[in-house]
Amino acid sequence: MARVSQEHLDARRRQILDGAARCFSRNGFHATSMQDVLGEVGLSAGAVYRYFRSKEELIEAIAEETFTGIRAAFDEAARTTPPPLPDVLVARVLRGVFEQQSHDDDGQMFARLVVQVWTETLRNEVLGVFLEDSYSRLRLTWAGLADAYRENGMLAEDISGDDMARTLIAAAQGFITQHALFGGMKAEVLENGLSGLMSMRRPEAD
Amino acid sequence: MARVSQEHLDARRRQILDGAARCFSRNGFHATSMQDVLGEVGLSAGAVYRYFRSKEELIEAIAEETFTGIRAAFDEAARTTPPPLPDVLVARVLRGVFEQQSHDDDGQMFARLVVQVWTETLRNEVLGVFLEDSYSRLRLTWAGLADAYRENGMLAEDISGDDMARTLIAAAQGFITQHALFGGMKAEVLENGLSGLMSMRRPEAD
Repeated sequence: MARVSQEHLDARRRQILDGAARCFSRNGFHATSMQDVLGEVGLSAGAVYRYFRSKEELIEAIAEETFTGIRAAFDEAARTTPPPLPDVLVARVLRGVFEQQSHDDDGQMFARLVVQVWTETLRNEVLGVFLEDSYSRLRLTWAGLADAYRENGMLAEDISGDDMARTLIAAAQGFITQHALFGGMKAEVLENGLSGLMSMRRPEAD
Repeated sequence: MARVSQEHLDARRRQILDGAARCFSRNGFHATSMQDVLGEVGLSAGAVYRYFRSKEELIEAIAEETFTGIRAAFDEAARTTPPPLPDVLVARVLRGVFEQQSHDDDGQMFARLVVQVWTETLRNEVLGVFLEDSYSRLRLTWAGLADAYRENGMLAEDISGDDMARTLIAAAQGFITQHALFGGMKAEVLENGLSGLMSMRRPEAD
């Protein structure tokens, strides 16, 4: 009985989060009311307030879930042995991020949610601390990858691992931004672009 | 008389836009009222409403100015002959973007504004059309640069110029995102990271 009940609670929580994410993605956090969320998930106020007492709680739960999913995709991609080169690595992260999240579109809804979560994070200290912690750990992990490239003679000696880490994270963030704003981004676009950068030869090196 | 008057009008408009940008950057578009803007710029409602009849008009003016400034920095960097390589090019864009905008900080206020403008654009059709047009033209210009690299034997034959363009734009967007959320980004970080990517050698090429 207790087990069934926990499953039911989890499924209900999931249903609310998914419905709220759809509302937020469409209309933004501020223009969405709890009433909109109730309408979207087809549940009573009483049923929803058992899980989330306010819109703020719902926003924080969605934001934390979003960040956690993205970080998991970064960590997962970095764990492969031997680590793939940056073009393959970043494309793998993006595929991981969008596969977990997108069931019914090409991931644009999720990308829109991420951009909104960034904006929300600018003014929400709880989210700010959470995201900063994720970001610091991600930078360390990816700087370690860059160090490994360097030790294997694949990366120039004078390039800091942290600068590489922040640049690759930036490419992934910009991918999400473009997909949110314009749609139509595929992981291959970034994979090809990074591969192009890796193929470049400075004129004086010829 | 007419000339002085126009200068005065322009300066007043500038004063309102700058004050509103400070408010929006601090508290976001939604949590900022016209009253907050009036307090920040130290003008009466009558004086401000002569220039902007609503908060929406103010937001659109700020957003369009933001996009226009960013596109100008991209275009300007791409006009240099011969075009610099991607690491120098993207760093020049970012320096251009932040130099125009930041008088009193390291540009984090401006970066925060850009992220908020993205979010606003997701739900504002006027801004959506404006940004999409900027983005399309930017992609074309930068794809042309990538084509020039390729023709000069600096870029692998099989890399599409458009994929390169979108990847470099993504790197710049991610830079702005990180600077908005965490601060402390310098154009050199991205310059070094891109330079690192350009220095990479695939193991099988050795």
